[in-house]
Parts: sequence; structure tokens; C-alpha cells
Amino acid sequence: MSCNKIITITRQFGSGGHEIGEALAKRLEIPFYDKELISLAAKKSGVAPEVFEQYDEKAANSLLYSLSVGLYNYGNGFSSVGDLPVNDRLYILQHKIIKELADKENFVVVGRCADYVLRDHKNLVKVFIYADIDSRVKRAVDRHDIDPARSKQAVIKADKARANYYSFYSGKKWGLADNYDLCINSTNLSTQQAVEIILSYIDIIDKK
Amino acid sequence: MSCNKIITITRQFGSGGHEIGEALAKRLEIPFYDKELISLAAKKSGVAPEVFEQYDEKAANSLLYSLSVGLYNYGNGFSSVGDLPVNDRLYILQHKIIKELADKENFVVVGRCADYVLRDHKNLVKVFIYADIDSRVKRAVDRHDIDPARSKQAVIKADKARANYYSFYSGKKWGLADNYDLCINSTNLSTQQAVEIILSYIDIIDKK
Repeated sequence: MSCNKIITITRQFGSGGHEIGEALAKRLEIPFYDKELISLAAKKSGVAPEVFEQYDEKAANSLLYSLSVGLYNYGNGFSSVGDLPVNDRLYILQHKIIKELADKENFVVVGRCADYVLRDHKNLVKVFIYADIDSRVKRAVDRHDIDPARSKQAVIKADKARANYYSFYSGKKWGLADNYDLCINSTNLSTQQAVEIILSYIDIIDKK
Repeated sequence: MSCNKIITITRQFGSGGHEIGEALAKRLEIPFYDKELISLAAKKSGVAPEVFEQYDEKAANSLLYSLSVGLYNYGNGFSSVGDLPVNDRLYILQHKIIKELADKENFVVVGRCADYVLRDHKNLVKVFIYADIDSRVKRAVDRHDIDPARSKQAVIKADKARANYYSFYSGKKWGLADNYDLCINSTNLSTQQAVEIILSYIDIIDKK
């Protein structure tokens, strides 16, 4: 199946967004980026991937301030971001990598405010995947190493971190339908069904 | 095409949700309810449809208070709501009519918190239709009798009224993806494309 789109997937924790994105990329035969962006950022910067991993999709307080007072030249690449906190450095590196990738190929990318980073790209499909809290807690316990007794709290906390990250870097409110082209509640869907819904959406929007 | 679903459509003003709902019902060969609910409510209550029309999808202040202090028996039908403001009476009548309809047939319904009213119905598909503000303003000027100079303000005001109505009666925040099964940005879609997306969604969720 061919694809002339870049698809960004924003997902609530435990909604299955990662699996859906991965399966979608496989069906479309295009690359899939999630944690892979950390490896790419690490390779470009020389920072150990393990260090970046701790800070992935977590907001810092300093970036907007640094940008507003012009502490560094945003367009000048990596050397200029050396003094920033790790999460801001990672955001800027991932942002740059996502833009570079978008100039040369189509792909599916999960998280990392990619919908915001690529907002001016003309063949973008922005998808939001979410689910009821109970099904997300169940999935989190099944798939991640989370203590069942604290699972609900952990899911809410993980979501809050993603929401803060998204709002901090994009200035938009996480979870509002307006930010996306298509929002899918995955509560009662298999990964395959969610993939089919996105594929048929892409198919329909291409027919004018 | 057969359909074993009730489809509720919540829509931003000017997003084309009414037209999408109407075309969807036609394709599925099931009834469509929007303003039709006013005629049904008017017929049941004896109030003139023109009176109800003024108050349609507008929140009052009194209903929650009245419910909380037990001023009337909610389950007892229409005679007990005679002392309430018109918008509350209309909401209660529409609520009752929507539930009665859901017991006997499948349909497409637009607005009126139907997603909330029918929340326990097992074959419900809750759709949210929204669009960029500029395209909604354009549609509002094209289709409704709105002064172009004040059109943006009119659209924002109309949305605010719907949001208040929705939040007031459902206790949920308007526009959050979480409230729906499927949210579609209609900005760059024709009515027909939006209908196709909903049809293929229904088709996919029915395949287990």
C-alpha cells in the first residue's frame, strides 16, 4: 500500500497508540518513529541514549524563557543548545530530526509534539488515540511493568506528564479534538481495527 | 445499507455537522432528528414550536437546582415540568423523546446532548464534528443569515451557547475528544467524505 502522508499519532498512556502507529507504518510500508528518535538524537549529539531516555517527553521550565530572551540561536543546530537542560536539548534535537525526516520521507511518528512541529506540512494527518481510564489501566498493567495497586495513579501521572509536555512546547491544550484531524477512542477496538479506521480515513481524504 | 446503531452527532457551529448527519441517515436509511425533536416536543406538550425554537440548545440556570431540591418528579412525564423555564422543559421533553425513540428504532441525532442522554445504550456511536474557525465562519455566512462583518463573533457566540448547554446538562467539557468514539475535523472534507469516514468506521467496528 502506498502512502503520500506523514501521520502523527498523539496518544493517551495505555491507549495502544504505540502499537497502532507501529502496525499502521507496517501496513503503509513506511518508517515508524517513537523511541527511535532518541537514538537518532543521541547519535547526533553524542549524549548517551540512556540519559536522553530519562527525559523523553518531559517538559522543562527553561526553554520558553531561553527562547524569549534569545539565549541561543534556534536555527543554528546542535552546538548552540549545549547549556540547556537535557529535556529541552532533547526536544530541540528531536524537533530538528523530525523536520529533517519530513523533508525526505513519509513516516508514522508517535508523540513528541510532532503534530505541532510539522504543523505547516501539507500532507500531514494528525491522529489522537485515547481510551477509557479503566481500559488504559488494564493495558498498562498487562504491557508495562506497573504495580497493579498503583496502576490508576501511574496512568494518570503519565498522562499528566504528556499533557504538560504537549502544552508546554505547543501552547495548546492536550486532548482537545481541535488539535487533530481524526480522534479515535480505542477502548473497544483491536489494534487492527484502529489501523483499518486510519487507513480508510486516508483513502477517503485522498478521493476528492 | 443496514445499520444496527444509533449515531449521535455533536457539532461545532458551522462545521457542517447537520448536513453530515442528514446525509448519513439517508445512506443508512434510518430517521434523522435535529430540529424535528422540537416539533415532537411541541406536539407532546402543547407548547407552540416557535416558542420552543427560541430556547433550543440553550441552558437555563434552574434545572440542576430544581432537580437537587426535588421540585418535581423527573420520571412522571410532562405534566410535572410545567413550572420550569421553557429551555428546561424543552430539554426534559427532548431527553424523554430521544430515550423513547431509542427503545424502538435506530437513528441519527444531532446535538441536544443525545450522546449523554443515551450514554448507557449499547449500540451507540458518538461522533464529534469540528472544523477550523475560518472555514466555520465561511460556512456560517454562506448557509445562514449572518452578517459577514460580525460572522466570527457570531460563530464563537453560537459555539459558546452549545458548549454551555452541553456542559450544563451533561456535566462534561465540550470539545474534549474523550466524550466521543470518533472525532472528525471537517475543515477540508466534503459532506460526502465525512459520511464515508463514519460509514467505514461503523463497518470496521462491526467486524470483530
